[in-house]
Formats: sequence, C-alpha cells, structure tokens
Amino acid sequence: MTKMIKGLAMKRIGEIGWVEKEVPSCGPLDAIVKPLAVAPCSSDVHTVWEGAIGERTDLILGHEAVGQVVEVGSHVKDFKPGDRVIIPAITPDWMSVEAQAGFSMHSGGMLAGWKFSNSKDGVFGELFHVNEADGNLALLPDAIPVEEASMISDMVPTGFHAAELAQVKLGDTVCCIGIGPVGLMAVAGANLMGASQILAVGSRPDCAAAARGYGATDIINYKNGDIVEQVLEKTDGKGVDRVCIAGGDVNTMREAIAMVKAGGIIGNVNYLGSGDYVQIPRIAWGFGMSHKFVHCGLMPGGRLRMEKLASLVAIGKLNLSPLLTHRFKGFKNMEPALLLMKDKPRDLIKPVVTIEE
Amino acid sequence: MTKMIKGLAMKRIGEIGWVEKEVPSCGPLDAIVKPLAVAPCSSDVHTVWEGAIGERTDLILGHEAVGQVVEVGSHVKDFKPGDRVIIPAITPDWMSVEAQAGFSMHSGGMLAGWKFSNSKDGVFGELFHVNEADGNLALLPDAIPVEEASMISDMVPTGFHAAELAQVKLGDTVCCIGIGPVGLMAVAGANLMGASQILAVGSRPDCAAAARGYGATDIINYKNGDIVEQVLEKTDGKGVDRVCIAGGDVNTMREAIAMVKAGGIIGNVNYLGSGDYVQIPRIAWGFGMSHKFVHCGLMPGGRLRMEKLASLVAIGKLNLSPLLTHRFKGFKNMEPALLLMKDKPRDLIKPVVTIEE
Amino acid sequence: MTKMIKGLAMKRIGEIGWVEKEVPSCGPLDAIVKPLAVAPCSSDVHTVWEGAIGERTDLILGHEAVGQVVEVGSHVKDFKPGDRVIIPAITPDWMSVEAQAGFSMHSGGMLAGWKFSNSKDGVFGELFHVNEADGNLALLPDAIPVEEASMISDMVPTGFHAAELAQVKLGDTVCCIGIGPVGLMAVAGANLMGASQILAVGSRPDCAAAARGYGATDIINYKNGDIVEQVLEKTDGKGVDRVCIAGGDVNTMREAIAMVKAGGIIGNVNYLGSGDYVQIPRIAWGFGMSHKFVHCGLMPGGRLRMEKLASLVAIGKLNLSPLLTHRFKGFKNMEPALLLMKDKPRDLIKPVVTIEE
Amino acid sequence: MTKMIKGLAMKRIGEIGWVEKEVPSCGPLDAIVKPLAVAPCSSDVHTVWEGAIGERTDLILGHEAVGQVVEVGSHVKDFKPGDRVIIPAITPDWMSVEAQAGFSMHSGGMLAGWKFSNSKDGVFGELFHVNEADGNLALLPDAIPVEEASMISDMVPTGFHAAELAQVKLGDTVCCIGIGPVGLMAVAGANLMGASQILAVGSRPDCAAAARGYGATDIINYKNGDIVEQVLEKTDGKGVDRVCIAGGDVNTMREAIAMVKAGGIIGNVNYLGSGDYVQIPRIAWGFGMSHKFVHCGLMPGGRLRMEKLASLVAIGKLNLSPLLTHRFKGFKNMEPALLLMKDKPRDLIKPVVTIEE
Repeated sequence: MTKMIKGLAMKRIGEIGWVEKEVPSCGPLDAIVKPLAVAPCSSDVHTVWEGAIGERTDLILGHEAVGQVVEVGSHVKDFKPGDRVIIPAITPDWMSVEAQAGFSMHSGGMLAGWKFSNSKDGVFGELFHVNEADGNLALLPDAIPVEEASMISDMVPTGFHAAELAQVKLGDTVCCIGIGPVGLMAVAGANLMGASQILAVGSRPDCAAAARGYGATDIINYKNGDIVEQVLEKTDGKGVDRVCIAGGDVNTMREAIAMVKAGGIIGNVNYLGSGDYVQIPRIAWGFGMSHKFVHCGLMPGGRLRMEKLASLVAIGKLNLSPLLTHRFKGFKNMEPALLLMKDKPRDLIKPVVTIEE
Repeated sequence: MTKMIKGLAMKRIGEIGWVEKEVPSCGPLDAIVKPLAVAPCSSDVHTVWEGAIGERTDLILGHEAVGQVVEVGSHVKDFKPGDRVIIPAITPDWMSVEAQAGFSMHSGGMLAGWKFSNSKDGVFGELFHVNEADGNLALLPDAIPVEEASMISDMVPTGFHAAELAQVKLGDTVCCIGIGPVGLMAVAGANLMGASQILAVGSRPDCAAAARGYGATDIINYKNGDIVEQVLEKTDGKGVDRVCIAGGDVNTMREAIAMVKAGGIIGNVNYLGSGDYVQIPRIAWGFGMSHKFVHCGLMPGGRLRMEKLASLVAIGKLNLSPLLTHRFKGFKNMEPALLLMKDKPRDLIKPVVTIEE
Repeated sequence: MTKMIKGLAMKRIGEIGWVEKEVPSCGPLDAIVKPLAVAPCSSDVHTVWEGAIGERTDLILGHEAVGQVVEVGSHVKDFKPGDRVIIPAITPDWMSVEAQAGFSMHSGGMLAGWKFSNSKDGVFGELFHVNEADGNLALLPDAIPVEEASMISDMVPTGFHAAELAQVKLGDTVCCIGIGPVGLMAVAGANLMGASQILAVGSRPDCAAAARGYGATDIINYKNGDIVEQVLEKTDGKGVDRVCIAGGDVNTMREAIAMVKAGGIIGNVNYLGSGDYVQIPRIAWGFGMSHKFVHCGLMPGGRLRMEKLASLVAIGKLNLSPLLTHRFKGFKNMEPALLLMKDKPRDLIKPVVTIEE
Repeated sequence: MTKMIKGLAMKRIGEIGWVEKEVPSCGPLDAIVKPLAVAPCSSDVHTVWEGAIGERTDLILGHEAVGQVVEVGSHVKDFKPGDRVIIPAITPDWMSVEAQAGFSMHSGGMLAGWKFSNSKDGVFGELFHVNEADGNLALLPDAIPVEEASMISDMVPTGFHAAELAQVKLGDTVCCIGIGPVGLMAVAGANLMGASQILAVGSRPDCAAAARGYGATDIINYKNGDIVEQVLEKTDGKGVDRVCIAGGDVNTMREAIAMVKAGGIIGNVNYLGSGDYVQIPRIAWGFGMSHKFVHCGLMPGGRLRMEKLASLVAIGKLNLSPLLTHRFKGFKNMEPALLLMKDKPRDLIKPVVTIEE
C-alpha cells in the first residue's frame, strides 16, 4: 500500500501544476523529510520558464527548505524522525572523488551535487527525499524561525560563496554587482569577512536599503551611468580589491575586470543563462598578465556548511529577516509564491512559505 | 665628461638599429651593470615588429641578462663592482603598496614592474641600469654558465609561474599548451611541483623532445585534430586537473576551459597580443558555477626569486642547456640573434649571446 | 648647528628619564616626523623593567604614534612636510629577501622589522626618524582622531594578526585568550573575519565589557576554574575551531592545544617573556598527528597594512574609542602615561597622550 | 554457516599470535578484500610491544595492503569482486563533518580515520573489511607490482604529507629529519614539490644512499655532532625554509625550530610515543613572534589520494623499489616479517610479504 504525495511541479517547459507521486523510498543512508518552510528561487523560474536545465516532465520543484524528519535509513546515525532540520540546496555524494578533492558540489560530475528540482524531485512536495542524511542535514537551532532558516539553504551559502571565491580580506574594498537576495548575501558575506568599503550595484530602492543594512557603504546605480566609471570615481581611481558577481549576464565580466585592481579577484556565483562566451577584455586583463583572477562556483552544501551558517544566525551576527519581503502560509500557497518570484515586483526580495506542522 | 654607450635599440615600430646613449646614472639604491650574456625574447619581437607596447624611439631592447656590476649607489649594501649577477626581467619597486600586497610585478601600476625595454633602456647595451639593486640582483652561482643563467631572467620564472598560477599539486594531471621556451619551463615547473601525467601541446619535433626531457608524458599535436578531444582521450574522458597556457591566442582559453575538470585551475602566462576578448565558453564553464578558476600573471621578479631558481640549476635539479639551441658570441651579435628570434626557424628554441669579459 | 631634541628614554634596565639627543638625520628614503599622539605599550614596560630585549642606554622609547611629517629625503615620492601620518610599530626594509618572501617584519633578521625603541630611538621624542617613508607611512584619514589612530600602529595590527594567523573563517568558533588591548583587537579581528561564537578569556570587568562590544559571545573567567573545561562546556564538548593567544605565558599553549579541535589552528601574538619552552601536550596533540597547527608572528607593518586598517576605522566598521580608557595631553605627560602602563590599574585598557600641534 | 579466517593478531600487549575469527560482514557500502601484498609498519610494533594505543585483545594487525575484492555491499557502485585494489591505511567516514572540513583522517574524532589494527581488525587476515568502499579503495594500475603498491597505503602518503604540511615551494631548502621509509618518502615528496637543497638527517648507510636517490643533496649524520650546527653550516648560516620531521622524539622539535628560518614551516608526521610535552624553544621561536609555524598530521587516506599517488608510480616519476629491502612470500610469513620490523636490522628499510593469488 503506497501512500501518495502531492507536489508543485514543472509539468513541462513553460508550465507548472500540482502532481501526485509515490512517497519517495528511503535508502540506508537517506532521510524522508516534510517541509516546514520553503522558498522559491529564481532558479525555479529559470528552470520552468526558460528551460535552463532542459526539458523536465512532472518534476517537483524547489530546493530551499526547512523541514521535519519523517523517516531515516538503517545506517543513519545522527538524525531521527521528529528532528527539525535545515536542508541545503546542494546535497553532495560525500564518498565521491570530487568531494575528496574539496569540490563536493561537483560530486558525480560538474554541478551534479545539485539534485533537488534538477535530477530528482525537489522540496515543494508533501515529503521529499534527502541523500546521505548524516552528511546533508543540519539540526535547526531553536533560536531561528523556520522562515529565516529557509534562507540558509541557498541564499546565504550562495551569496557568501561569492565573497569566499573573491577571498575578501580585512580592509579590502569590494564591489558587489547585483543586490537581489543572493547579492545582498554577497554584501553580508564580504562585510563579515572584513571588507571596509563595499560598493553595491543595483537600482531598486528596497534592495539598496537592505544592502546598506548588510554593510554596503556606497550604492552604485547603473541607471546613473557606467558602473566602472562610478566605481573608479568612488575609489580615487584605484578600482577595487575584489568583485562579487551576483547579477548581470555574460557581459558583466567585462565590467568586473575593468574595475578590479591588478592582483584582485573576481568571485562569480551568478547563473549565466544565455550567451556563448563570458568575455574577459584583453587589454584591461593586462594582455593576460594582470593577476586579475576569475573565480566562479556553485555554493558548497552539506551539513557542516549549514551548521556554520546557522550558528551565525542563531548567535545574532546575521539577520535574515530583511530578505523576507513576502510571507505566505500554507502548503498550497507555494504556487502564488512561485508566481510572485516569476513576476518579480519591484519591492520583492524573497518570498517564503511556511507550512503548519 | 660623459662616456657614451652603444646599444641595440628599437628605432621606431618596425625598425631596429644601433644607438649611442649616455651612460645611465646611478641613484643611491641602484647599480650599473655590463652584460655577460643576454638573450632576445619574443617580447622584443612583439615590441619592435608588432608595436605591442606602443611607439618607442631609440629604446635599447632586451630584458634577459647576466652581467657584472660596474657601479653601485651609496645605499647599496649587498653588491659591489665586480660581482657577477643575474638580473630579472622584472625589477619591482619594493616599497610600493603593490609589492606589499604580494604583487611586486605590478608595482607602480599594472605590469609596471617590467621596466627594461619598456619604460627604460634594456640590457642590450654596453651598460645598463638596475633599480633597487639590493632587491633586484642575485649573485650568480659559480656552478652555472652565463648562457644558461640568462634563462633565469625570464624563461624560467615565467614558465614556472604558469605552474604556480595553476597551483599544481602532487599527482595532478596537467596540460601545458605551448612548448616554446616558456612552455617548456611550464612543463618543467609542473613536473618539479609534482605533476604526474603532463600533456604538452605543440608540433615542433625539437620542442617535443625537449618537453619529454622536462617531464611531459604525452605530446599533443594540434595538427592531428582538436586538442580538447585528444586530451580527453588520453585522460579517460576526465580532463585534466590543471592547464598551463604558454602559447596560443585569445581563443586558447576556450580549449583550456573545455579540457579542465570542475574544480581545476588554468594558469596563463602567455602574452596576448591581439583580439578584444579572451573568451570563456559559458556552458563548459558550468554556467558560471564550475569552480574552473582562471588565473594569469606576469612573472615575479626580484632577488629572492632569482636566488631560488638559480639554486635549482646550481644543484642540478633543472638543466637549462636544452633550451639553448643557438649560441652567439660577441656584443655585436645581439643583432643576428634578435633577427633569428624574429625569423623563428623550426629548430629554434632560444638563442643566447655571450659577451667576452 | 645641530638642533637637539628631548625624548623619554630608557636610561638603563629599570630606569627611565628624559634625554637630549641630536635631531635624527634623514636619508634619501626617510622621513623625520614629530608626534601628534603616542601611546605607551606593555612592550615598553617589558623593555625597561624586565630587560626583555637586553641592556640599552639612553634609548628613546615608544613605537605607537601618529605624527606630522617635518622633513623627507630626496627620493621620497609620496609624502611631504605637513602630512599627517600613521606610523606603524614595525617599519620593514622592503627590499630585503625576507620582505620578498612575505615576511617583512623579519627583514634583516628575525623580528628585525621592529626598529623603534629596539634598534633605534622610538617615537617618544620631539622628532623621530622613519625609514623607507614611502613604504612605511600612511596618510591619516581626516575622519579619525589622532588618539584613536595611534591604536592603528600596534594594537590593531597585532590583535588582528592573531585572527589572521589562526585563519578564522565564516562561522568558526574562536577562543581568544587575553582581553587586554591586543586581546580585544584579536576579538574584533576574529569577529570582522566572520567568527560566530567567540569565547574571550579574562577577568577584568571593563575588559570583559569591551570584549562583548567587539563581538565576544561568552566571557571565560579563569578565576572560575579551568578554562579548557569551561570552553568545552560552552561548545558541547567539541572545542573550538580556532584559538587566538594574546595573553598568558609559555604554559598557555597547553590550554590552547587542549581546547582546539583536530584540524584547528592556534594564532599566537603574545610576547613570551620568560620560560625555556612553549609546551605542546603530546597526547592532546594527537601524538604529533592531530592537524592542530601552531602559528605565531609579529604584526605586519608598513604602509598598505596601515591604510587598510585605517579604512576600517574611517568607514565606521571598527570603533577604537573603547580602548582608550586614560587620556593625557602634552608632551611631558608621556612619563605618567608610561608609568600608568607599568602600574596597570584594574580599569586600564590603554593610555594615550596627545601633543598640541 | 559462517566461514572462519585466520589472522596474525596482537593477543595482548607484548604478545602476537595467530587467531581465528569470523569472516567480517559486509554492510551496504563496504567491501571484503583478501590481501595480495602486505607490509608491517613500525606502528604495528608500537601497538604490540609498546602498547601505544592501549590494550587490545586478539586484534588482527596490519594496515598496509594491496588486495583483491571478494565481496561488495549493495550500494557499492565502482568496485566489484575480482578488482585488484590499493587500500589506504586511513579509511575515513566521508560523510562526517570532519571530512567536510577537509580533515577526513579525523572523521568521527581525532585520528579516528585510522581504523585498521586500531578500532577494528587489520589487513593481516585472510580477509578484511573496508568501510565506504567507493570512497576508500583505488584500482591498482597494472604497471605497479603489488609489493611496491603496498607502499602506497601508508609510507608514501605519510612521508609526502610531511612535505605537504611543510608547504614546500619551488627552490626551498628543506631538512628532513629521519630517513626510515617514511623519512625517505618525505625526502621524495619534498623533491617532487620542487625543493632544491634537501638535507637528510640519519646515520644508516643504506638509508643515506636511498635518500640521495630520492633527491637529498646532503646527508647529516647526528653522530657527527649537533645537527642544528651542521644544517646551519651547510646553509651559510641561514637555516632552512622548511623542516620535515619523520623520526626522533618529543625533543626533535627543539632542533627543528632552531634550524628553520623565520617565516619557515615545520611539518611533523612522526608518531610521538612518549614524553609529556613537545617543546618549542622560546627564544629560537622569537618569543612567540617568529612566524615559525608548527604543523603536524596523520596521513590523508581515501580513494583520490591513492589514485594520485599511484599515478606517480605508474608513470615512472616515483620508484618505490629502493624501499623494499626484505621480501617475503606466503601468508604465514607475515609473522617473521613483523618480527623483522621489530628487530630492525641495520640494513632494513621495509619488509613486504606477497601472498599467492
């Protein structure tokens, strides 16, 4: 007698809808979890309406969630039914050689640590499956409300990773391009890593206000002219030590290279959805000899990452409530929340849906 | 009564010739050196016949030299007239903030640590000027012949820097694109840093033989088809951990990105002389999330660098004689040596000119 | 006609007093500076009353200062008389091989970057000499009062260096042993680098309050029992990721090793004045296989370091006023300020002396 | 019907003997392997005759082996019965937070990645159990004989780790203390990472000859006087950039600190069996400010590590045959091989036992 679950799915490219599926089965290392809070991501929008990862049929969406464990496999040691947990968007295969090399997000192939709403059903179902539970779940600290905790799945680790990729050091000047939710977390990450001047590039007033709250010292509005010129003007012509890219497109790299100092580092976490080539301008790159390093990466997932980020929130050093501009209650409201993400009204930073326990 | 010196100069773009100039003056930190062995560089060819650094008038060429100190400034502590020294192609201003940040080659501005035959007269004169002698000269160990030592000015530190930028680790698989003299030193550097499989890309038989001598395990000839396919075939479809670029053009990055694993690093030291953009292919770059890092840089110069590299040669762990395919004797033979570099016959790796003491 | 200057000096071990000396002479790279604000350091106390660096005769004390440039050498490019500057306690010889290796504080020999009140007269004179002015001075931003800026000479870079040596990462738990002025800056540094839980070890109430202000989440009072047990209790028995040592003695390492996790790092900046050996407990160190790394170091000095730290203060991300518990005015009050540092009353964090311009 | 296996065991502290045990059971992620070649380790000697890890009863010894897979668990993907594999001495739990932090050898607690002949039966049985087979086995390349391959389990990764911990860079001078099999691999590792001068400390002629073969340029015999003085003499009084410790006792750190430059790094992989404290000499450590870093660690194990090291052997860049001075054939000869390791005759480097397939 198999129970069925409902979930909000991508029916095909361009179409979403509710589907019924069998309860996922739980292997010896796995867990089955029911969601307590979920958040739609712009990736879900890319997946459905832009076909970013190709065609999918009746794939349950979502990869940002906090939940409660319902079942665990025979070899799971550290979690049990009833535990309230944070689930990372990226759930690596920890035994893989890629994880052993320090790149767990690419376990099993480039980007293959991203499983939810990509290679298996996501978290927008009544229940969902988590691989390698001991390695991929983290206990939710009591001090963190579930809505805020859902930001730790993806927004925080992705945004922070931009600052990590850029290797921000004490006293660095940093430009963060993009101040959506990931960009705001790039600002917060750069600030937490000790940046002094942080120039945040964006135009929406609510995002700009949030960016200042997270440590931005200057807001660069691209509607006011070339952002490279604005950045140079605000840094006495020197440019910045580091650039975090969390917005824009394949051409954004041109600006990043132009504004960073020789010896500087660019950290990109922005999903690049179209265009053939990311373009590094040859002359600004010092004819290939500038020591302007270009780094990029998918967020690191897994349990330790979640625990460390949650500790910053629980202890009061990272406040996630400014991200949550639109709050929904109830499982069925995943649909309007996702559509809101698609419509992206000017005052939206991030919607979140809480589900009654 | 000012003595005059002769030197082989760029008269203007496209033209070389001998010029007479005043003996350079020696500031309190500086040294005046006469050359014992010099080598022309493909950069000299780019400078003169491609106008790579713009117009220059009567600029003495050359930046690879071993010499003898003739005069030192009042505040020079560690060198004296008569000392036989290696002079790095890059002679930084060590007090600059860029040097303090670890990027001495960009002291005073991007690439501005490169002074010889760029912002001041080079080493193809009867005498030449060295700034900050205590920081930029290194004593020549007796065990190293002057011809070989001249390779330590630029070929060795530039080639090795490709391997350093790529952060080669024990047991890594590495592809070195380009097996001219710099590419050969990239192979040697990768090998000295512990690479296992080293795939060297090139077509000239003499260079291929030298590459094998320096640690290459496979030679990839681009005349035999797509180099990415060949690299994948020789690595069981996995690609390589690291790529060193020491040849090619702005399009070479496409191949490098395609052949490197997620989590891999590309180190470019190749001077890129034309083209608007270095192109990173978006999809092979994992849509901006592959952790395929792109590094580039001008060689680190200065005294310590020269001393460390010279110790490898003096102690017998790096043999530079395979680089020296064409040997000239006598100051006036700088001219045919430079023209040889321009003509680049198929069996040329590197010409060198020794000057009688 | 040589003018004379007065200065507060170490007459011999155990005795201080005012001396007259000739105005220091200014070499081509140097500057002569008059102090605007100075602070005595516990090192001055060690130097005089403990003979920490051996016998000295009539050596002018002091190495923490903000001042005004009075004269510059012929080859100084970036500073001129009248400039208000921060002077680091450590003023390296930037052309040295040690600086080229990244350890400028050891230029010319271990610890030899420390010159003021060690190998030459310090900053407690009417005028003082700064070597390599372009590399060792930093312009004082208008936004920073001179008293606070004097903390950037030594307290900030030394305390921050503990966190740098310990390589604090986002979300790390950190124990800072010692909450004197350097320890407080270790707390602030760890916090600025992204630590979550910060356990600060000390007993004085004013320091504890300041530590909380700088990011400490727990105060460990060694008067309440074994600090290792207290740290383990507050970290669920796991211990900490990082330890910063800015107090204690040669036995403190025993506690640090015992409280840090396998894979953790200890950063020591504490001057160890007595005892033969720093002792690493063999079993807690995993029989030599724990990956518990022991790092130590003198603060990095120089211009860039000063500029970066000053930017954090100027921009409002680091508030130094809590350090300044005792403020003096007037050149002659250097003496009572130093004696206060010697007496170390319970409410003292740091005294500072401002001198009228 | 349970089959039984025989194995060479520690009966109790001070006594070895043959035991019979049930065939180990194979969990879903595990493998059961029969040995093809094994090597006793000095750790086995410490374990039995010094009680280094405490009392054990009938624990099968051994942790260096090459073998053939006999059975795999239901969730093992990459290995199957019949595969010839290298088994690392350290077999981590890859899902642990410690592994996620980059310290897999401490998964589940300090040193707890070491399971064979420690927390479970070792490889000196007719069959043995391997946890997380996909993460901890590596296919044996055909090019490597089984005897030599058995050195990849522990000798190579442990010795190389000394050089890794010491972060050897191109052109560094390195002192390797100890030239037993691990010390020889520290020499080889330092050489493969680009060291120039390598001073190897030891007294046995066969080991000294092997050390020269692996890249040592100088042999320091402690019977000829203080090794610190000898090292300083051979380095023009400068000391070395790096020290690898693979021998000695808790007092060896005194010498290491004394001979390393300020800014240098010491990498210890030596098991320290007795003594309360590892002693860092305070003054030679620059009073706690020398930037002389002390690193230590258990070897990294796991599949990727084995694959990378094996590639160096298979490709001919690391020759392991000089280590194998004593070769035995037949399962029952594990006992004399172990006793030989205990007796340690002067010409012994390493014994190995091959078992007929």
